[in-house]
Amino acid sequence: MKKLLVLALAAPALAFAQPNSPSQPGISGQAAALRDAALRDDHVAWDVLEGLTTEVGQRMAGTEAEARGRAWALRKLTELGFSNVHVEPFEMDVWVRGEERAEIISPFPQSMAVTALGNSGATPAPGIEAEVIGFDSVAALEAASDESVRGKIVFVTHAMAPAQDGSGYGPFGAPRRQGPSLASRKGAAAIVIRSIGTDHHRNPHTGVQSWAAGVRPIPAGALSIPDAEQLQRMLDRGRTVRMRLVLTPRNTGRHPSGNIVAEVPGSDPSAGIVIVGGHLDSWDLGTGAVDNGAGVAITTAAAHRIMQAGRPRRTIRVVLFGAEEVGGLGGEAHFQGNRAAGNVVLVGESDFGADRVWRVNMNLAPANAALGDRVTALLAPLGIVRGRDPANAGADLGPWAQAGTAAIDLNQDGTRYFDYHHTPDDTLDKVDPSQLRQNVAAWTAMLAAVADAPEAIAPVEVAP
Amino acid sequence: MKKLLVLALAAPALAFAQPNSPSQPGISGQAAALRDAALRDDHVAWDVLEGLTTEVGQRMAGTEAEARGRAWALRKLTELGFSNVHVEPFEMDVWVRGEERAEIISPFPQSMAVTALGNSGATPAPGIEAEVIGFDSVAALEAASDESVRGKIVFVTHAMAPAQDGSGYGPFGAPRRQGPSLASRKGAAAIVIRSIGTDHHRNPHTGVQSWAAGVRPIPAGALSIPDAEQLQRMLDRGRTVRMRLVLTPRNTGRHPSGNIVAEVPGSDPSAGIVIVGGHLDSWDLGTGAVDNGAGVAITTAAAHRIMQAGRPRRTIRVVLFGAEEVGGLGGEAHFQGNRAAGNVVLVGESDFGADRVWRVNMNLAPANAALGDRVTALLAPLGIVRGRDPANAGADLGPWAQAGTAAIDLNQDGTRYFDYHHTPDDTLDKVDPSQLRQNVAAWTAMLAAVADAPEAIAPVEVAP
Repeated sequence: MKKLLVLALAAPALAFAQPNSPSQPGISGQAAALRDAALRDDHVAWDVLEGLTTEVGQRMAGTEAEARGRAWALRKLTELGFSNVHVEPFEMDVWVRGEERAEIISPFPQSMAVTALGNSGATPAPGIEAEVIGFDSVAALEAASDESVRGKIVFVTHAMAPAQDGSGYGPFGAPRRQGPSLASRKGAAAIVIRSIGTDHHRNPHTGVQSWAAGVRPIPAGALSIPDAEQLQRMLDRGRTVRMRLVLTPRNTGRHPSGNIVAEVPGSDPSAGIVIVGGHLDSWDLGTGAVDNGAGVAITTAAAHRIMQAGRPRRTIRVVLFGAEEVGGLGGEAHFQGNRAAGNVVLVGESDFGADRVWRVNMNLAPANAALGDRVTALLAPLGIVRGRDPANAGADLGPWAQAGTAAIDLNQDGTRYFDYHHTPDDTLDKVDPSQLRQNVAAWTAMLAAVADAPEAIAPVEVAP
Repeated sequence: MKKLLVLALAAPALAFAQPNSPSQPGISGQAAALRDAALRDDHVAWDVLEGLTTEVGQRMAGTEAEARGRAWALRKLTELGFSNVHVEPFEMDVWVRGEERAEIISPFPQSMAVTALGNSGATPAPGIEAEVIGFDSVAALEAASDESVRGKIVFVTHAMAPAQDGSGYGPFGAPRRQGPSLASRKGAAAIVIRSIGTDHHRNPHTGVQSWAAGVRPIPAGALSIPDAEQLQRMLDRGRTVRMRLVLTPRNTGRHPSGNIVAEVPGSDPSAGIVIVGGHLDSWDLGTGAVDNGAGVAITTAAAHRIMQAGRPRRTIRVVLFGAEEVGGLGGEAHFQGNRAAGNVVLVGESDFGADRVWRVNMNLAPANAALGDRVTALLAPLGIVRGRDPANAGADLGPWAQAGTAAIDLNQDGTRYFDYHHTPDDTLDKVDPSQLRQNVAAWTAMLAAVADAPEAIAPVEVAP
């Protein structure tokens, strides 16, 4: 507990209202009481997060570390009293990191911090050495002649800045998502990008990228942001910059992965199932505290609170997905294996860290407007506002939302999320216990309202 | 210039008063005008800092990188118009880093970020594997029986917190300074400490330590702070923790190092010399922007401003010291080579980053009280207060102060200094241009007052 206090003091000063459950018209006193109790005590959420990140550490998809994560979660969810706790197995192709080094050979010899992007090709063991050609965007790379790029190491930078809703990740993520295939098509020897992130530490950000059809994999890495800025300063001097790059990842073939499923059984099987969860796998550089031990801990703790309070009307299923980072494999496997049952009425994933929830977005049918209003009223005392964007249910539950299942997103403040995302710095100390409690309170309130809603929860019309 | 603006926006919001030189009783209008001009324009300081860290990068003492740093500085100080620019060479024993890896073998397998401390012994290439025994202080290690420590990897933690004056570095630095010799004496296989720092990033802090007489060197490393906390959580579970540690540094024998000396000639040779400077070498992990490209840049820029304004009464000597990090070798060499001349009247080193100067401490003879008051008055408009601690003149000029030469310390705010100190994160982006300008303004004002003081600057009485 001493550690908790230290962390709380070190974290940004944030005080959440401690509502004392004045009755609110139309909403359940029990849901409000559960919410307020969660705000005062985070022991399940912290225990899950601290345990998973300490006792398992990184949980790279398809590796034995992820398997240890599944064994850990199976044991923990069973201990916590969930029902029907089991593994939902699947197989996957696995890519693992090797040696990683980048060195400026001339004109200013020095080493740089680099990490391979997912599915990167490999250099020979001693590395490759080539001239660096820099671009300030994927569009600029696209516009360059093949001739100018051929045989060189392409460098692509960007100008991502922190944003509360994390909206920079889409447009500024292009160097990672499209850069490697584009560089390969143009005959580049390799590509290094400015890490897709918003910090200024020497910790590069990895992340998945997929080779476009027919494209030959080339070595593809991310420089830490200070190193990318250093390289840009060198290029700005107009001198020829030569780099030696060593990246020796490899594909290890097919290996088992899987989801962990646990349930809080409902009293009314005809009322349908609510699925919540996060993903169990992480990138291999940190211990996956923010991405996504936090989501695992928050949704597990919220479902546990509902369970402790008595049997809800609807079954709550907690799914801890495998292999999200490398392409949402676990989410897709769960959707394909369970959609035919036709009994899932609402979904929601937590996969954006554990800073305070500031907004709720909902995809609800018009017939469920009153439910939406009750959820909004329950969340308001936590400082959460209603947004009007569509809920997307995260990478793992997105397939359900896209197929017309109702969905609710509780949006965390993402201002510092991309400081740690996919880096060695994604560790337990980045989670603020007071904000973690607010997350659990928000998820508990939402789950209480949804699981016990007396009305039917209807599917949502999907745009054709 | 675009970069400068971006950095300025990203940095903590700090606005320094832009004094418009109202006349202050007893102080020179020219000194105030020089101070205010420095606050508006940092081009020399930024140019030196950006150039040194970009074009040379890390400058580990006694290596070819430090030699490139000397060549760079020689060229730059000559270009800037300084007189008598030359190298003051010396030789030194050189220790260099090798492979560095730490891995928990059981009960919770995972890798940890580690770096060797200066003069660390080496493990065999495949590393050593041993049980970890943890201590919360050097005193606790000292109290342990040899039997309990023998053959194990000692882990020592501490509770250093950020402080404006950096005062935690002394007491909380004990695990680095005394831990390795103590662990070796007790028969430990190796030692890893919680990095001596105040951040929460996966970047371990290196730093020098010296083996006590007769002590056999053992592998000695620092874990990053998140990793040290992770290891502590494992030990707190009461299970046996086994670590594999690979540290393969080596001693490479004697190599050249040196100081760079440059002067602004004074008009009155009988008035004595004022020495200012910083150290040119850095640790090998970052690019040495904060420690101590900043001090090099600040003191060079301040002396350059005095030079541009016309010939001062006293000669100002700027010394960029070699090999400070490994034991203040350059400072000692300069002192031993120059003390006999008996003409140095005042010294001051900048070696605490580039955050704003908040305090001035002075060692002046009672006869120079008026000079102290003039310096205080000149610094007050920059928000700098007068302290009553003795000036120590830094590691490199400390020998002069200890021998009775007058000294002035301009203390930087050290609140975030130990976030970056001796880590890979010590890079250019950590320097805030607006605070750098305030530093140059403070040094310019102090130098103007001291170099042109009409009275004699007397030695200070030294406690016997």
